[in-house]
Amino acid sequence: MAESDRIPVKRRRRRPTRTGTVLSEELIIAAALELIEAPGGNALTVRRLGEALGCDPSAVYRYFADTDTLLLAVADKLIDDSLAGFAPGQDWAASLRDFGMRVHSSVLRHPRLAAVRASRVTAGPAESRALDTGIGILLQAGFGPAEAVRHYRMVIDTVLAHAAVDADVRDLSEQQRDQESRAWQELNSHLPAEQYPNLHRVREHLHLMDGSPFLDTLDALLAHLAVLRREQSAPTA
Amino acid sequence: MAESDRIPVKRRRRRPTRTGTVLSEELIIAAALELIEAPGGNALTVRRLGEALGCDPSAVYRYFADTDTLLLAVADKLIDDSLAGFAPGQDWAASLRDFGMRVHSSVLRHPRLAAVRASRVTAGPAESRALDTGIGILLQAGFGPAEAVRHYRMVIDTVLAHAAVDADVRDLSEQQRDQESRAWQELNSHLPAEQYPNLHRVREHLHLMDGSPFLDTLDALLAHLAVLRREQSAPTA
Repeated sequence: MAESDRIPVKRRRRRPTRTGTVLSEELIIAAALELIEAPGGNALTVRRLGEALGCDPSAVYRYFADTDTLLLAVADKLIDDSLAGFAPGQDWAASLRDFGMRVHSSVLRHPRLAAVRASRVTAGPAESRALDTGIGILLQAGFGPAEAVRHYRMVIDTVLAHAAVDADVRDLSEQQRDQESRAWQELNSHLPAEQYPNLHRVREHLHLMDGSPFLDTLDALLAHLAVLRREQSAPTA
Repeated sequence: MAESDRIPVKRRRRRPTRTGTVLSEELIIAAALELIEAPGGNALTVRRLGEALGCDPSAVYRYFADTDTLLLAVADKLIDDSLAGFAPGQDWAASLRDFGMRVHSSVLRHPRLAAVRASRVTAGPAESRALDTGIGILLQAGFGPAEAVRHYRMVIDTVLAHAAVDADVRDLSEQQRDQESRAWQELNSHLPAEQYPNLHRVREHLHLMDGSPFLDTLDALLAHLAVLRREQSAPTA
């Protein structure tokens, strides 16, 4: 979270709550994540947090200015988890691929926060570390500072955008999934050649439209960046 | 929508509703879109549709099996609108870029349906036409049938995924937008070099992280596909 949203530490009192636990940022973040991911419910309110933590709801405001600030802190915690133990290797493209796959998996483990992670800046410490690591991989590859920032933005935002869609797809009801797979089968068998000449030509491969193109896309972006690097480092004729 | 979800025409009675209009698929789809996009409300219910159309709610079921089927028909109508007047030209990459930009703009014009368009198959006539057109562009470029399908999936799903995130970003409150732009500024000025060595190196370019990388990504994918085509058509040594 942004520095200006952090509550000065002196306003916090380290007193046990009714259930005997001592409140902390970490504890509130963990309780908020649990509330968000509880089956059926996903409304993050200070009243519910107070209930879950066994404390007066107002105590939460000693740590977070509002629920939006808390939500971003939860998202930042998930970034932290997703990159725990990650260290870039010698091969920059393989490192960036591993980085992207970890972020994608982490979003799918927490589908209800997928849209927040794709569309918001947490500006917390984990996001700064992730940025530093990701941009570092592209600097190591030999890209200049501005290019490293732009390419990192392209890769991470594409990973997060695909992950958010993949999370929505996983969240479809059984009936909706049936509709999807039936749709591709029916499309395959109802293609008058005169009306859909191109679909008719590829009809035996339309099943390839099913499933997520996340990895294809990540690999295409990495291949593109590799070509850019080769072009830049080739001696000009 | 899938053929099996369509209601046989003979069950429909072309009688005017209370307000004197004759019900039709098109009319119900238009009313549903208006309900979804009404300020504040976004719940599509058959009761509200009946009110909006001046007919008995049950009449809607003579046209659509359920609200999910209707929602997909609305999404299909938007695909139709997005590609109205589009015709591929001689340059396949320029055509696919135009195609992608039209779809992206259309999603931003209807942000509340962005997630549905990114994560669902409408399997309606407009989606089939869009598929036929998009895959046709890649066949024209010289890709084989299976490749044309896979590359089309990659491009269209990436366009839709970025468009859905961009729609969410536009939907942020003023306070949330302030937080975003403040976040990048603060990050820029709070970067201890020893903790974030890479961010420190690129600190003057971090503002490039702000804004959507949609066009960068689309252009990167198209450049990648152009390289693939050149490699495939080059004579092997």
